[in-house]
Amino acid sequence: MTDSLEKALDYVYRDKSLLSAALTHRSHSAQHNERLEFLGDSILNAVIARELYAKFPDAPEGDLSRLRANLVRQDSLHSLALSLSLGGYIRLGEGELKSGGASRPSILADALEAVFGAIWLDGGFEVASTVICRLYGAMLGGLSLERPNKDAKTRLQEYLQARRLPLPKYLLISTDGEAHAQVFNMACEIERLHVRSEGRGGSRRAAEQMAAEKALEMLNFNTDER
Amino acid sequence: MTDSLEKALDYVYRDKSLLSAALTHRSHSAQHNERLEFLGDSILNAVIARELYAKFPDAPEGDLSRLRANLVRQDSLHSLALSLSLGGYIRLGEGELKSGGASRPSILADALEAVFGAIWLDGGFEVASTVICRLYGAMLGGLSLERPNKDAKTRLQEYLQARRLPLPKYLLISTDGEAHAQVFNMACEIERLHVRSEGRGGSRRAAEQMAAEKALEMLNFNTDER
Repeated sequence: MTDSLEKALDYVYRDKSLLSAALTHRSHSAQHNERLEFLGDSILNAVIARELYAKFPDAPEGDLSRLRANLVRQDSLHSLALSLSLGGYIRLGEGELKSGGASRPSILADALEAVFGAIWLDGGFEVASTVICRLYGAMLGGLSLERPNKDAKTRLQEYLQARRLPLPKYLLISTDGEAHAQVFNMACEIERLHVRSEGRGGSRRAAEQMAAEKALEMLNFNTDER
Repeated sequence: MTDSLEKALDYVYRDKSLLSAALTHRSHSAQHNERLEFLGDSILNAVIARELYAKFPDAPEGDLSRLRANLVRQDSLHSLALSLSLGGYIRLGEGELKSGGASRPSILADALEAVFGAIWLDGGFEVASTVICRLYGAMLGGLSLERPNKDAKTRLQEYLQARRLPLPKYLLISTDGEAHAQVFNMACEIERLHVRSEGRGGSRRAAEQMAAEKALEMLNFNTDER
């Protein structure tokens, strides 16, 4: 049942019980994922620190800290969890299940950290680092020190304006989940360039940002190039 | 000049420029240690997380977090930096040097983190983990979930009382450094057991705790045994 998750992660656990624990919410059973989440949070912070250190060789420590804080916050983890459809694999207690826990951002973000922690234990630091960096690829690629406050939608808009192209359209494809924990699926369309990307998120805005990020990727727009 | 530091760390840097950067305070030059400190803080948190996870297989996440916070705080890093005589290797600007920066706890703690970060880059994660765990050996060994609030002096006192032995004596050996950044060298003597240990710290109390910790080690008192 978790084969498809392993495929999405591009990592096959040797010890499936670690993956199983990582996907178990405390409402489900005593062997839950909070200890693994502690580990996962640690390795995530370390891996992202090293990536940022290498990617921005001239950035002061304060910039690295700020960029990292953005990448590891619940919002970002939630988006990644959605891209893996992690909610479908999480084991919840009856009450949590009924109240829509499988789409609660904090539960998804925590479980993803636990998944990272479990890979660390199962495959070692460098293997886990590879998985994390692959998942964060688009977000890391979209980072820029020059424009630290510009989000993906803004960058996409500026990219198009600079080329005198019409602005992208954002379209709601669908929403999933209970009212209090809705997930939005948004498309970003740039007709003239035949680009259409999709994003998921806990709000319209988050989903649009993710779609815009992917559109930038499709346009091969590397914001690192100064 | 840094040979003796490498010996104390039991690690020889392949790239000496990394060590040199780790030991350079921002008051000295532009190639200072703040970026390495960012890396070092990350790896320290990750390494300690993994150690605690393995050492306390039944501890809830909250306990692991609390224990880690104690181990990675400035106080603890400062004590370890003193045990390495790190202050003698740090490169400071003139002003900092004159005002006793080489014994300022924050400068020493930050430099030690930078030293860890530099080992990570130079030798890889697992090598850095080994160095960190060796340095933290006594502190990790002294940890106990059962007695989370009992410090080393208390544990030593209880150990002796349980054996109807007289209490240890704490003696001031010397103080170094300027008035505002003094370092205390304290001895802990347990005459009856022919034990004498020494500790250094930014306060009498911190130095006594370190000496007590070492005395416990000499008594082969493993607080993990339940």
